[in-house]
Amino acid sequence: MRIKHPPEETIGRLLAYLRTLLCLQEEGVATVSSQRLAELCQVKSSMVRKDFSYFGEFGTPGVGYNVDEMIRQLRKILKLDKALKAALVGVGNVGRALLLYPGFKEEGLRIVAAFDNDPGKIGQRVNDLVIEDVDALKKRVKQKGIRLGILATPVSEAPNVAERMAKAGLKAILSFAPCQLNMPKGVRVQCVDLAMEMARLVYHL
Amino acid sequence: MRIKHPPEETIGRLLAYLRTLLCLQEEGVATVSSQRLAELCQVKSSMVRKDFSYFGEFGTPGVGYNVDEMIRQLRKILKLDKALKAALVGVGNVGRALLLYPGFKEEGLRIVAAFDNDPGKIGQRVNDLVIEDVDALKKRVKQKGIRLGILATPVSEAPNVAERMAKAGLKAILSFAPCQLNMPKGVRVQCVDLAMEMARLVYHL
Repeated sequence: MRIKHPPEETIGRLLAYLRTLLCLQEEGVATVSSQRLAELCQVKSSMVRKDFSYFGEFGTPGVGYNVDEMIRQLRKILKLDKALKAALVGVGNVGRALLLYPGFKEEGLRIVAAFDNDPGKIGQRVNDLVIEDVDALKKRVKQKGIRLGILATPVSEAPNVAERMAKAGLKAILSFAPCQLNMPKGVRVQCVDLAMEMARLVYHL
Repeated sequence: MRIKHPPEETIGRLLAYLRTLLCLQEEGVATVSSQRLAELCQVKSSMVRKDFSYFGEFGTPGVGYNVDEMIRQLRKILKLDKALKAALVGVGNVGRALLLYPGFKEEGLRIVAAFDNDPGKIGQRVNDLVIEDVDALKKRVKQKGIRLGILATPVSEAPNVAERMAKAGLKAILSFAPCQLNMPKGVRVQCVDLAMEMARLVYHL
């Protein structure tokens, strides 16, 4: 099968297909039509077929797509077929919840180091990890070959911490601090803004 | 000032403008040009001007937009100018973090009731709230006039719980369970899928 690099806007949909296929797999569904998948992901079925056509032919006409096979292929296309290590900075309420969040492991993502600057937290154990001093970030990132960071500090500290994370060699940061200002250049930052997600819902009430 | 209903795709951008303006406000910035705001939100400045033109004229040529005034107007347009009550179902690690999350309050959102089905948790206090039996959900939603729900149960329980939330009269649900299948009709569901946000970053590493 050919693997081409899909355009940026396709990636979001491929992730949505993957998530939905994982749900179908959990429900014991073996095959799914492009119509059904499109319906579940709220896109047009012609879009599903177009998106998948980037990667060769999967479906069997009249039968649909094999769920297990599609998941395997999508994981490969989305580079989710290898285990990935992440470093967490900021072990407050959100950080602690993330350390205990089971969903990351399912996608092959593992938080292998956690950091804080609070002497009261450094040395504490959460799950299998001992919280380390944030001063050890650069050393640990290099030593463990970590490329992904998770930023879960208070908003006011986020720009500084993000800069430290970038300098430590992390290439991408998932930020739970909403502020997008002053983020370091050359590092991809994805923000999860819970209050704004909520606000979007409120608008449609 | 006229308030028209902006098209769906505009809402997401308005939320991004609001978030960025709040950050600028925190930094003590009083006015911002459409160019600068566009740059920070990664859209074209002509788009910023077009989006704002739905709501009349705000900016002063050569001076830019008044940050405080824009925030006030955007909150009004986005219906974020009134306090909003939410009910949380599922007080595990994620639910607990949400109860302690300061970001909601800043947007006028307040979790006023929390529910679980674990007898070991019911009756426990988190912040100002006592965790209640999920069987009391419908009664409490009615009594307190709650319209927003937050779903933070394990994935396997999410479809059932979402249905109970819909039956209890909640009109919109923010779900931290990624599965979008079997969600009740007539209720708007917004999913926060942390593993997928992470996966999107991984793709670009």
